[in-house]
Amino acid sequence: MPVLLMKFGGTSVATLDRIRRAAKRVGVEVAKGYDVIVIVSAMSGKTNELVGWVNETSPLYDAREYDAVVSSGENVTAGLMALTLQEMDVPARSWQGWQVPVKTTSAHSQARIEEIPTERINAKFAEGMRVAVVAGFQGVSPEGRITTLGRGGSDTTAVAFAAAFEAERCDIYTDVDGVYTTDPRVESKARKLDRIAFEEMLELASLGAKVLQTRSVELAMRYNVKLRVLSSFEEQSDDAGTLVCDEEEIMESNVVAGVAFSRDEAKMTLVSVADRPGIAATIFTALSEAGVNVDMIVQNISEEGRTDMTWSCPVDQVKRAEKAMTEAKAGGKINFSELLADTHVAKVSVVGIGMRSHTGVAAKMFQVLSNEGINIQVITTSEIKISVLIDRKYMELAVQALHDAFELDKAA
Amino acid sequence: MPVLLMKFGGTSVATLDRIRRAAKRVGVEVAKGYDVIVIVSAMSGKTNELVGWVNETSPLYDAREYDAVVSSGENVTAGLMALTLQEMDVPARSWQGWQVPVKTTSAHSQARIEEIPTERINAKFAEGMRVAVVAGFQGVSPEGRITTLGRGGSDTTAVAFAAAFEAERCDIYTDVDGVYTTDPRVESKARKLDRIAFEEMLELASLGAKVLQTRSVELAMRYNVKLRVLSSFEEQSDDAGTLVCDEEEIMESNVVAGVAFSRDEAKMTLVSVADRPGIAATIFTALSEAGVNVDMIVQNISEEGRTDMTWSCPVDQVKRAEKAMTEAKAGGKINFSELLADTHVAKVSVVGIGMRSHTGVAAKMFQVLSNEGINIQVITTSEIKISVLIDRKYMELAVQALHDAFELDKAA
Repeated sequence: MPVLLMKFGGTSVATLDRIRRAAKRVGVEVAKGYDVIVIVSAMSGKTNELVGWVNETSPLYDAREYDAVVSSGENVTAGLMALTLQEMDVPARSWQGWQVPVKTTSAHSQARIEEIPTERINAKFAEGMRVAVVAGFQGVSPEGRITTLGRGGSDTTAVAFAAAFEAERCDIYTDVDGVYTTDPRVESKARKLDRIAFEEMLELASLGAKVLQTRSVELAMRYNVKLRVLSSFEEQSDDAGTLVCDEEEIMESNVVAGVAFSRDEAKMTLVSVADRPGIAATIFTALSEAGVNVDMIVQNISEEGRTDMTWSCPVDQVKRAEKAMTEAKAGGKINFSELLADTHVAKVSVVGIGMRSHTGVAAKMFQVLSNEGINIQVITTSEIKISVLIDRKYMELAVQALHDAFELDKAA
Repeated sequence: MPVLLMKFGGTSVATLDRIRRAAKRVGVEVAKGYDVIVIVSAMSGKTNELVGWVNETSPLYDAREYDAVVSSGENVTAGLMALTLQEMDVPARSWQGWQVPVKTTSAHSQARIEEIPTERINAKFAEGMRVAVVAGFQGVSPEGRITTLGRGGSDTTAVAFAAAFEAERCDIYTDVDGVYTTDPRVESKARKLDRIAFEEMLELASLGAKVLQTRSVELAMRYNVKLRVLSSFEEQSDDAGTLVCDEEEIMESNVVAGVAFSRDEAKMTLVSVADRPGIAATIFTALSEAGVNVDMIVQNISEEGRTDMTWSCPVDQVKRAEKAMTEAKAGGKINFSELLADTHVAKVSVVGIGMRSHTGVAAKMFQVLSNEGINIQVITTSEIKISVLIDRKYMELAVQALHDAFELDKAA
């Protein structure tokens, strides 16, 4: 029988009633003839409670024990979901990570899945089991210790199972009903997309659209797993939600798929850096070693052997960056007159695979912002994305103007 | 290094503070030079919460899923305890049942331990680990599913580990500071026993002294594991609590070790049963098949081919017993005129290995009760125990009078 993956996040299994509702959705797919693998998260709030206990017990915790404690939340949900399905006369059983086994690296609390053998679950499908309920977010290391995949790891678990079992599709049930052209809280005309390409989803996810974990989208793209994002709180039809798929499966699309934004950005500038070969490498190596996630980078034209170096990073990493630069200067590695930090900026991006074949998107974006009197501070571009850093107070205005100009409220 | 077993029950690990207090006790034993195996229960209340969810989800639950869900409470405590010990610079790690592995039967929710291989834990002791924190109450079946041992199973886990690792002693930390000559709430002069024989403890446990689970005492007796019961809420000296041990290790003891009682008894009488060979077998097979735990049995002298048959059983099984007897009569298996049930009785027992060598204990017991004007309804005796069924309103009086008469407030 064809295999379907279904993943339910924490809010979708937060109570016994919600588990029942989710189980009914699973029952619908079983009735269609699928063998179903369900990946469950912990009931919402449970993981935070467990993490809180670990942090209170041991602030610099042994990640192996962290994993042993924190993984228990998913085990509870898996058992309860299996029982709920059994009550509905659907043959089901729960699987903890080590029982499958979900083989991972030993990088505790942020392990990567290395292999998912299909034999044990397939043997049970052959015996008549219709649903394997697997505890998400966890696996087992080569040493036989429990590992976790890091926050959002249940999405990754789901996609990895879909790839291993060559599932027809991987449905991610969550508390939103799909991927939107932008955040509806900022632009009320935001439209749900029926389909979006993996590459677009990756850009949107890494830009702060919190629907899907980036790693799970990367994995889905690599193994060409069709991902569908849909709401566990609404009655669902077969074409509900948003399908994240290969771009070849998207016949018609707008040039721009969506407008993303991120509020929590800071812009930092090293003023009057002594410009010599290797200076950029020195600066950004120091920032990287300090754990600063540098996003955009701009270097001004050099004058008289000195230049200004500007970058953006998450606003909560500014202190860390300042410390790293001060130390590098004290150590004689770099030389600059001043370090400026502007913590009142935002990043706005337009994303779309259509940009590959359509020119003029950047020009149009800049013109729209100019018409609104919004000054662009930094620009970066990729093949399918253009991002700008602007004053944070204009962020909503920029998003709305761009959404409108690229006619994202209208389907292609 | 010698191995010590330490078991902490639910109230002893109910909060992070209590886990810290328990960990300090473990640290004291490590400092003495022991390699320690700690068995932990779930934080008190957690198991009940999980059981509640399972029952609400599926009243006639699949016991395999019940076990998968309910065992998670102990896993959390084991991880937190290991982290707490690490914070105290004690090399420790947690072990879930399947990691040891604790091999059990497949009788889910009431599995029996079959084997505890010592290799993996001993290998870690050899590498410098000083404490293995093991999740109690759980194991793994031959099919690789998680099993639980039933309520109170953590005591059994502790004793089984003590036997497997040939531990010097098995310390059971709980919310009482030892085994008493009787319940201090009934007799204020009740005295804590320094030592008690396995056989005495078994009689006391099965009579309702809820300090230790009966199975764990049986196991300790079979493998001659020295069991010590002590409080996790008091500073402890080396001879704190009560040592449950082989009778040969008890040099001096009172003839009677303690007075036990049970409030929740009922007395039932089948009046005028047709007396023929095999009639007792017919009656008690029917009761057993109905799940009635018959305790005491008395058959009156037969007159004119008819007799009265009396037994005691837990008061909440009276309805079940009545149904079984009515059906047996309707089915023609037995014949009686009336079934009486007295739900206002209590059982009082004196227990002591000294009875084996001292005569007159029964006579003295009956005289004491007679002096107080208490009528004895049923009597049973074993080698080290005499039990009587009396009107429940006299129970406290009987316990106090017997405690006094056998001078249990004074050490031997």
